[in-house]
Amino acid sequence: MSDAFRSAARIIVTGGTFDKRYDAIKGELTFTETHLPALLEQGRVKLPLAVDIRLLIDSLQMTEAHRLEVLEACRASPERSIVVVHGTDTMVQTARVVGGAKLDKTIVFTGAMVPYSVQGSDAPFNLGFALAAALTLPAGAYVAMNARIFPWDDVDKDRTAGEFKRTSGDRA
Amino acid sequence: MSDAFRSAARIIVTGGTFDKRYDAIKGELTFTETHLPALLEQGRVKLPLAVDIRLLIDSLQMTEAHRLEVLEACRASPERSIVVVHGTDTMVQTARVVGGAKLDKTIVFTGAMVPYSVQGSDAPFNLGFALAAALTLPAGAYVAMNARIFPWDDVDKDRTAGEFKRTSGDRA
Amino acid sequence: MSDAFRSAARIIVTGGTFDKRYDAIKGELTFTETHLPALLEQGRVKLPLAVDIRLLIDSLQMTEAHRLEVLEACRASPERSIVVVHGTDTMVQTARVVGGAKLDKTIVFTGAMVPYSVQGSDAPFNLGFALAAALTLPAGAYVAMNARIFPWDDVDKDRTAGEFKRTSGDRA
Amino acid sequence: MSDAFRSAARIIVTGGTFDKRYDAIKGELTFTETHLPALLEQGRVKLPLAVDIRLLIDSLQMTEAHRLEVLEACRASPERSIVVVHGTDTMVQTARVVGGAKLDKTIVFTGAMVPYSVQGSDAPFNLGFALAAALTLPAGAYVAMNARIFPWDDVDKDRTAGEFKRTSGDRA
Repeated sequence: MSDAFRSAARIIVTGGTFDKRYDAIKGELTFTETHLPALLEQGRVKLPLAVDIRLLIDSLQMTEAHRLEVLEACRASPERSIVVVHGTDTMVQTARVVGGAKLDKTIVFTGAMVPYSVQGSDAPFNLGFALAAALTLPAGAYVAMNARIFPWDDVDKDRTAGEFKRTSGDRA
Repeated sequence: MSDAFRSAARIIVTGGTFDKRYDAIKGELTFTETHLPALLEQGRVKLPLAVDIRLLIDSLQMTEAHRLEVLEACRASPERSIVVVHGTDTMVQTARVVGGAKLDKTIVFTGAMVPYSVQGSDAPFNLGFALAAALTLPAGAYVAMNARIFPWDDVDKDRTAGEFKRTSGDRA
Repeated sequence: MSDAFRSAARIIVTGGTFDKRYDAIKGELTFTETHLPALLEQGRVKLPLAVDIRLLIDSLQMTEAHRLEVLEACRASPERSIVVVHGTDTMVQTARVVGGAKLDKTIVFTGAMVPYSVQGSDAPFNLGFALAAALTLPAGAYVAMNARIFPWDDVDKDRTAGEFKRTSGDRA
Repeated sequence: MSDAFRSAARIIVTGGTFDKRYDAIKGELTFTETHLPALLEQGRVKLPLAVDIRLLIDSLQMTEAHRLEVLEACRASPERSIVVVHGTDTMVQTARVVGGAKLDKTIVFTGAMVPYSVQGSDAPFNLGFALAAALTLPAGAYVAMNARIFPWDDVDKDRTAGEFKRTSGDRA
């Protein structure tokens, strides 16, 4: 059994649908604070984890500077297993920036199609899924959503279907 | 990228806390039907999965015959990635029966400390976590709970703490 | 004990925050169908109720014609106890149209500050509260929100605080 | 408009299914603390309320002394509108003790068939329903559950159906 199973992991939060909350006064979904601690408590997580609340924005508002900031946060991480919580709309772009840097770490991007604050959110499932992927996959960058794992250089979001697919074609 | 990332997986349901529901007439938690389809819908699971509702019992009521039935279901599975949803109280015993058989498959036992039907359940997180582990780990039997992965022959449930630990000692 | 306690009531649905759902593809809150049946099931409602799904719109989009339609639905109702589920932004305006008509019925407007589909919604509490008010108050039109009951001609929404107050001044 | 609409009310908590929580270590539903503050927050309650956490027990364990304690708590209440949160199994017995005392207050017993901590609980609906009933009904003792209101001397729990009915016969 390798040490990988005992290693701590790091979770880098950038916002996205995952973290949107309903603002009862404004009557809309906004960002106030991350749900990550609530999610880790719900998952009764026993693994020692480092949490880095880096950004709390809609991924459509991510600039190249934001993506480089995520890359640097990954590079600086002492943990080799990293989950990046990210909006789904530009998750693939950030994964490409991070994946292209060929860090010797396992970096798994995940997020949610439905906010954690909305009933029936996919956030808890996706977070658990991404964390196990980060602990077990070989070094590289991946997108892990809704029970599928994609390498960073072979994934696109199909916005009409609301899911991720291989650029090279699924189930070909 | 290996084929593993495209493979379907199998989920074998045996019951356990994961699947308990509140019976408003009896005023207690019982089994009526599995929550697994609701969980897969919530997780917006896009991976083709086979689901085998094998048992729906409290794991304290599992006999040796039940454990052998789980082993045979794993052996017969055409999918090499298998998640077994199991009660936590005797999850370790069943994992030993399955692990000792040295099947050439990755079999990951998981469950929940809080029923899916109760607010704040760890079931969605654990299911996602176990499924990624089943898709990525080498052949063998494992227990995956609350963000930790244990090999079948080095795990025990600490009933006082309500968590799983290595038999050989954690963080030694 | 008067017959009022055995009478059926009518619920007229017009939409509002109460009924907004998250659209995972669009990434926003929209209307698809009312949550009322789910709410009545959750409340284990044993009272025979008539449900009239009249509109499913944001109350900011309500026109005078819509308000007259609500009034006519109240007038035509064979039940004397009526709850109108309505968006909070213009609830007071519609209550004035209905209240001014002096129908010999008890008509209680309610809604939600947080959609039923969002965790921690006030919709179930408000629906129960409004329904009891409709069954017990004398004829007239009222706004019932968040455990307060207001007559139709002495209520305003304080949008900054996200609550309803008496026009004539609270706690004076 | 009478003062009744501005009066504060009192909520007396005695426990019951309403307040049961899942104990993940014991694997069963128990009492630890009341959910009432969480429920009032969820209902965004704006009415000034007094909360009296009197007991936290299963109503099957209520003795005559407990019932007299509830009666005295009602008698001592400075508020004339009182909701008593109570287990459903012996709610009727306690309502009879309180109702027989003919206090000049409106005392409404309510509870839940499904604990607040379980998904889809009727607790928020029932609490809102009972509170409006306590604010609007004439003095007397009542049972208010699942959208029905019963006078204290004409109600029984039908345990097979899991609902309350008039002793004198429903819909006769």
